[in-house]
Amino acid sequence: SDVKKIAVIAGDGIGPEVVAEAEKVLKKTEELFGHRFETEHGLFGGIAIDEKGTPLPQETLEMCQRADAVLLGAVGGPKWDNNSKELRPETGLLGIRKALGLFSNIRPAVVFDCLKDASTLKPEVLDGTDLIVVRELTGGIYFGEKFRRETENGQEAVDTCAYNVSEIERIARQAFEIARTRSKKLASVDKANVLETSRLWRETVIRISADYPDVELEHVLVDNCAMQLLRRPSSFDVIVTENMFGDILSDEAAMLTGSIGMLSSASLGEGSFGLYEPVHGSAPDIAGQGISNPIATILSVALMFRLTFGYHEAADAIERAVKEVLDAGHRTGDIAVDKSKAIGTTAMGDLIVAAI
Amino acid sequence: SDVKKIAVIAGDGIGPEVVAEAEKVLKKTEELFGHRFETEHGLFGGIAIDEKGTPLPQETLEMCQRADAVLLGAVGGPKWDNNSKELRPETGLLGIRKALGLFSNIRPAVVFDCLKDASTLKPEVLDGTDLIVVRELTGGIYFGEKFRRETENGQEAVDTCAYNVSEIERIARQAFEIARTRSKKLASVDKANVLETSRLWRETVIRISADYPDVELEHVLVDNCAMQLLRRPSSFDVIVTENMFGDILSDEAAMLTGSIGMLSSASLGEGSFGLYEPVHGSAPDIAGQGISNPIATILSVALMFRLTFGYHEAADAIERAVKEVLDAGHRTGDIAVDKSKAIGTTAMGDLIVAAI
Ligand SMILES: CC(C)[C@H](C(=O)O)[C@@H](O)C(=O)O
Ligand SMILES: CC(C)[C@H](C(=O)O)[C@@H](O)C(=O)O
Repeated sequence: SDVKKIAVIAGDGIGPEVVAEAEKVLKKTEELFGHRFETEHGLFGGIAIDEKGTPLPQETLEMCQRADAVLLGAVGGPKWDNNSKELRPETGLLGIRKALGLFSNIRPAVVFDCLKDASTLKPEVLDGTDLIVVRELTGGIYFGEKFRRETENGQEAVDTCAYNVSEIERIARQAFEIARTRSKKLASVDKANVLETSRLWRETVIRISADYPDVELEHVLVDNCAMQLLRRPSSFDVIVTENMFGDILSDEAAMLTGSIGMLSSASLGEGSFGLYEPVHGSAPDIAGQGISNPIATILSVALMFRLTFGYHEAADAIERAVKEVLDAGHRTGDIAVDKSKAIGTTAMGDLIVAAI
Repeated sequence: SDVKKIAVIAGDGIGPEVVAEAEKVLKKTEELFGHRFETEHGLFGGIAIDEKGTPLPQETLEMCQRADAVLLGAVGGPKWDNNSKELRPETGLLGIRKALGLFSNIRPAVVFDCLKDASTLKPEVLDGTDLIVVRELTGGIYFGEKFRRETENGQEAVDTCAYNVSEIERIARQAFEIARTRSKKLASVDKANVLETSRLWRETVIRISADYPDVELEHVLVDNCAMQLLRRPSSFDVIVTENMFGDILSDEAAMLTGSIGMLSSASLGEGSFGLYEPVHGSAPDIAGQGISNPIATILSVALMFRLTFGYHEAADAIERAVKEVLDAGHRTGDIAVDKSKAIGTTAMGDLIVAAI
């Protein structure tokens, strides 16, 4: 049968530990569902800076380009925080997004029953919260021209935020398509009362909306959205926004669910190609101790199965297995109420594999 | 004695109602503390568009320039939302900030005891939250060059974000000064891992921090700040950030306190000049019904007394009076638990005036 190529990037900190568990899950689904995967491993982020002198080595990029999907652990850590720009893990992240054309970042923010109490929001406010932030990922102020110049008021730094109609159209269409598969409500977030890019954004989203008459569209100003996410999180379904606003709002949305350690994300390009990673970071403080939670990474595999491969049955099986293990009371330290009963990374991975 | 000139801009929606109560408070403090105020009134925002064809008439600007401080109600409303840029209330707001040199927006986010339950955050998380967001207000992407151009991918819109060293220095110094009067903790928020303006921001803040060795400085990335405000709001004291990030984070911070209808803000320029306004908007849905809450505007007068005039005794008296009236159980509809017992705008104003 059809062999899918997965580029695996363990990355830094807890990345290698959590990715190892996700790979066990891949293997188990091969056995059970007859899918076939070929994995290749590459260096990326801090470890690539240390070993190859660059956060995104050419061979890693080529490995990703050869693949059908990428599974990423996490990158970064204090060790590289004071490096010059070219030698920072983030530069690799921006570089890989651009090089692979990953223009869309999909971040489901859902509340896991077992973590309800972990949110700082009142349970009755959080109830029913299940939203997706669709963030434009290769445009805007992230990738615009940047420079410094001398002025009479000292040095001046400049960042340029640009969006063209095609860039807005493709992310808007994707958001409408996703909204269609859910409760058919799309909130487009901009700052159209101040920014020219936002005015073009809003005009374009409105024009595209004509093709999706079944989806209810609302426009929300970014400052208001930051408030409404707190006031009525469950009233949102799909949120679409530009790169910088999406960076801020997707983190706010993830945090309010209380489930940030369990959330997965997808960065998608044209066609079915995608890069999948947990929302949480590399957690250098607990790296190497075998206590990290592999669930977000395992759920990233499920997301890959759905969005890139269309392996819905296997995705369902993974998600069900996670739920079963949690329902049986098993917890890693980050989500355990009684920390003394917490299990380790591999134990959690093994339980989930067994439950699939 | 010394007569202080206050330019009063009632604005749109509930603006006129709440400003009228604040003016009663001004009068009462004249009687009690011997201060002398001369008020002048001007048109601004939507009403100025209707009556003068521009949101910021020249005579209103001149009135503000003649004054020692400005008291603003609120501007805007759906009536003007679809106007062209020059005929929108927001354009007046940006214009007045720039013309008056109001480079700093100060937004205290505190929790009012009587509104504790109004927050969507758990009370134990909110406990002790008392922070100030210091937002740069006349620079960044708000005021940079904006334009459209044709490209092979359709029209492209461009916004430019620029900051020079002097602009960053003055807002940084102000934030450090404020932190000094509080718990001596300053969080500077930027996106230094992506933006050149943020890198210059961080370098400059670090350089200025040498003059404030008694203030503990931390740097927080904007996406992380959006999360930490939710996770540990009470751990923040003073937050300083650039214009766009400040717009988003100050609204998030205000909303998490649950007290947004009671919060006041100051926009300050060089010297002691300042514009004072409630954080809430013009609430067109309840305008003209006499049910709006004048407390945020009344507290804006207290803030004006402190920051522009140095009338601390009168400011204390106003704040104490507000507390007394609330402690006695009086509530406007927005903050009443039992809505049937809610009192109106003028009744609330009168009670506070009587309590001063
Ligand atoms: C590390 C950083 C460059 C990155 C971003 O801002 O996009 C991160 O915050 C993210 O959201 O993936
Ligand atoms: C109305 C708008 C232009 C304004 C801003 O973004 O500054 C408002 O949101 C504010 O925060 O005062």
